[in-house]
Amino acid sequence: MTQVVTVRRRALEASEERAQALRRSFADSGTLVVNIISSPGSGKTTLLEATLRRLTAGHRCAVIEGDVATERDADRIRALGVPAHQILTGGACHLDARQIEAALGTARLLPADILFIENVGNLICPTTYDLGEDFKVALLSVTEGDDKPFKYPAIFARAEVTVISKIDLLPHLPFDLAAVEEQLCSLNPHATVLRTSATTGAGIDAWCELLTERLGKKRLASAPV
Amino acid sequence: MTQVVTVRRRALEASEERAQALRRSFADSGTLVVNIISSPGSGKTTLLEATLRRLTAGHRCAVIEGDVATERDADRIRALGVPAHQILTGGACHLDARQIEAALGTARLLPADILFIENVGNLICPTTYDLGEDFKVALLSVTEGDDKPFKYPAIFARAEVTVISKIDLLPHLPFDLAAVEEQLCSLNPHATVLRTSATTGAGIDAWCELLTERLGKKRLASAPV
Repeated sequence: MTQVVTVRRRALEASEERAQALRRSFADSGTLVVNIISSPGSGKTTLLEATLRRLTAGHRCAVIEGDVATERDADRIRALGVPAHQILTGGACHLDARQIEAALGTARLLPADILFIENVGNLICPTTYDLGEDFKVALLSVTEGDDKPFKYPAIFARAEVTVISKIDLLPHLPFDLAAVEEQLCSLNPHATVLRTSATTGAGIDAWCELLTERLGKKRLASAPV
Repeated sequence: MTQVVTVRRRALEASEERAQALRRSFADSGTLVVNIISSPGSGKTTLLEATLRRLTAGHRCAVIEGDVATERDADRIRALGVPAHQILTGGACHLDARQIEAALGTARLLPADILFIENVGNLICPTTYDLGEDFKVALLSVTEGDDKPFKYPAIFARAEVTVISKIDLLPHLPFDLAAVEEQLCSLNPHATVLRTSATTGAGIDAWCELLTERLGKKRLASAPV
């Protein structure tokens, strides 16, 4: 067991080194990088579609998709005219920084103002992997139940933004929004929590404003003095 | 990387040995063991509650709950008067056979006619771990979208039963039930697919009948000649 832990730690350290190199490169280019994490089916790709429809008029966007199988998500993004690269992990349950580095080396995604990384659908394993992102976003759909933040605390403690998705379905579900927001606040008092529905458009403007504001700040920080 | 793979393979082999020992012991006692796997929030615990309300009149049932954090799911089962043990994995993303063995050694769950194991909410990692079960059940809620079987093929190929849950929400969602059933059939032509709603009770009787039928067959197979 000690051997397993040691080998895992080494793999994680190697991945963290690559993440730091990616972060430096994204700082130089002023590219905002967002790592989106959730359960399967929480609406990551649908949120991205709604986001890209709004942002691509004024910003160069690109997407890296992580999935166990199928090019389906990258195809949905490409259908909007946005460059997308699909990483197929085979059986693996998360993306790591080396995969991001390899994708950026082969696919024509950069230069971009915002690079979205849609992680493999998994609320646990992607949490500990740094991809060189500016921040992690956790999605939680209201159909998953209002007990999830405390049941999967690590991701909600680390994500700077939690997007509560599919709020159009609230009338049909027993879901205590206030209880969820209390759990989120107790796990991460500084996180931003947004209520959204890609179907009705609720909250999507606020989400896009958050992104462009963060991009503006990054550009200021990376501008030559 | 080779070292990581080798160490992982060894850990998996050790777990498989324990799984075989558990399987022999469950064969001796005639206990049907069901390993339930899905994304977070697909309705595993809610399905179990509906199942136990029907089955406990005629059968001794017990439950092992796997979660990253909180005793919440075991508490929901105990509230029905059914013995339940909560395995807290910390950060780990699946249950393994050694944890099941340890739980059975300390908690008073056996003898039981049916032992339900609710795995950690994760559609990827629990797939490859044998817990000594008779069969794996995959849950897929209609809120997760109709592209999931092909996007997470391993679990749907291995599960003998797929339970499509929350069908009461179908009128509010774009979800192509026929397309999902086609994907499931192509991944595993011998699997049983059930359409259920724990809210309306749809399909729950068929699911309980499947369980009691499988229990009956196991009892016949394990009866002394």
